[in-house]
Amino acid sequence: MLESKTRLKVRFAETDAMGVVYHANYLEWCEMSRVDMMNSIGMPYSELIKMGYHLPVFEAHLNYKYPAKFDDDIEVTAKIAEMPSVKIRVDYEIRSGDRLLVSGYTMHAFVNLKGVPVKPPRNFLEKLSEKF
Amino acid sequence: MLESKTRLKVRFAETDAMGVVYHANYLEWCEMSRVDMMNSIGMPYSELIKMGYHLPVFEAHLNYKYPAKFDDDIEVTAKIAEMPSVKIRVDYEIRSGDRLLVSGYTMHAFVNLKGVPVKPPRNFLEKLSEKF
Amino acid sequence: MLESKTRLKVRFAETDAMGVVYHANYLEWCEMSRVDMMNSIGMPYSELIKMGYHLPVFEAHLNYKYPAKFDDDIEVTAKIAEMPSVKIRVDYEIRSGDRLLVSGYTMHAFVNLKGVPVKPPRNFLEKLSEKF
Amino acid sequence: MLESKTRLKVRFAETDAMGVVYHANYLEWCEMSRVDMMNSIGMPYSELIKMGYHLPVFEAHLNYKYPAKFDDDIEVTAKIAEMPSVKIRVDYEIRSGDRLLVSGYTMHAFVNLKGVPVKPPRNFLEKLSEKF
Repeated sequence: MLESKTRLKVRFAETDAMGVVYHANYLEWCEMSRVDMMNSIGMPYSELIKMGYHLPVFEAHLNYKYPAKFDDDIEVTAKIAEMPSVKIRVDYEIRSGDRLLVSGYTMHAFVNLKGVPVKPPRNFLEKLSEKF
Repeated sequence: MLESKTRLKVRFAETDAMGVVYHANYLEWCEMSRVDMMNSIGMPYSELIKMGYHLPVFEAHLNYKYPAKFDDDIEVTAKIAEMPSVKIRVDYEIRSGDRLLVSGYTMHAFVNLKGVPVKPPRNFLEKLSEKF
Repeated sequence: MLESKTRLKVRFAETDAMGVVYHANYLEWCEMSRVDMMNSIGMPYSELIKMGYHLPVFEAHLNYKYPAKFDDDIEVTAKIAEMPSVKIRVDYEIRSGDRLLVSGYTMHAFVNLKGVPVKPPRNFLEKLSEKF
Repeated sequence: MLESKTRLKVRFAETDAMGVVYHANYLEWCEMSRVDMMNSIGMPYSELIKMGYHLPVFEAHLNYKYPAKFDDDIEVTAKIAEMPSVKIRVDYEIRSGDRLLVSGYTMHAFVNLKGVPVKPPRNFLEKLSEKF
């Protein structure tokens, strides 16, 4: 299992006229956490791009339980629970203190820089397999 | 069934460094389409707020098939397929010409302006029931 | 003089917890208006990119008088008042009905796709000079 | 003089199809830095809101020198150079390493929660005056 935690503070820009974080913005936080998780196995996303890969989202799902507010301290946990083959599932939990605010997952597949689906880079799978 | 269509042009601001629309932004387009759908039954969202209601998202799901690009002409279809009780499901299809780019749904429930869940306003249900 | 008008409706996503449009978002509307203005002289921005150019902002200035709110009908006027040489100045007025909400300007210069400053494409200057 | 520094890492969501940070997003970073600066004098923005104040932007100016890219480490310096009376000017410098990317300023005035201009809260001026 691969797991990684990311901390952030809610920006005023991320709120909406309901006074809470706009629902689409949680996907940005999931991405930040995913980026940190890739860094944690020595496979930074900026490196992937240089190697000629992107790792786009082809499915996203979020369950909203409590809203985050401006200036809240947030912790995002990203987790890959199963060794992936072609499709990569990442699960998320977004918390403020002990309270679970949002949970969800995204599904990913590697593409080349023209957007054509390709096999995951070998060293990505090697580095990942050390965790399973 | 209640269905409504919304047209928009992709803004440069909505793209990311992959050269396509950033995945979270499709949720904004779903919302625009939802707002238009509410207008189409004479229940504008700004009116709901004046009546003391918000209609937040408690679940969101998107499947990404093809990416939208800067300056593309986009059509978003929002649909309520079943007469809702407390939970309201809205389905979406986002197209560029004939091509389906993204599909998905959001789940909603009415809350008061303090965020406490409440029953849907009666005239919302009345106006909606005319469509089913 | 080259002038162009763009209409839009304020998205809920564009508001913040003050209940009004977040101040950075007006720059997006200026850009939409700039894109429409380029289209109006047969020089679409997507075409510029294909020709190997970008037209980034190197200076931006906004004066905020009244805030826009969710669902407001907005009109953005973009104007090039003087025939440009290397630097291109675009002025903006953002209105809701008769009320001027925001005014400002952006300064631009052509760069190639690697970000290196270059002379404006000749057909851009030709098409623009017909307006002056 | 009041000065404060904020560090952040560029999010992929903040980039656009030019491969660099979208120009409007630097205003978000200025705001983050402004929020940190207010915290540094014991006058958190969330506290201001509870006291019945907002501190909106009525003017913004940015000069763009070099673009920030995904994953860059950014430092934003916010500075109040002169003791303000009614209008508050904040200056910014946004750097990546030694390189100055963007500089600019924003102008602010206190309003109540209905948006009506009011005098700055006395304890804000007291805390600020300790720095001048």
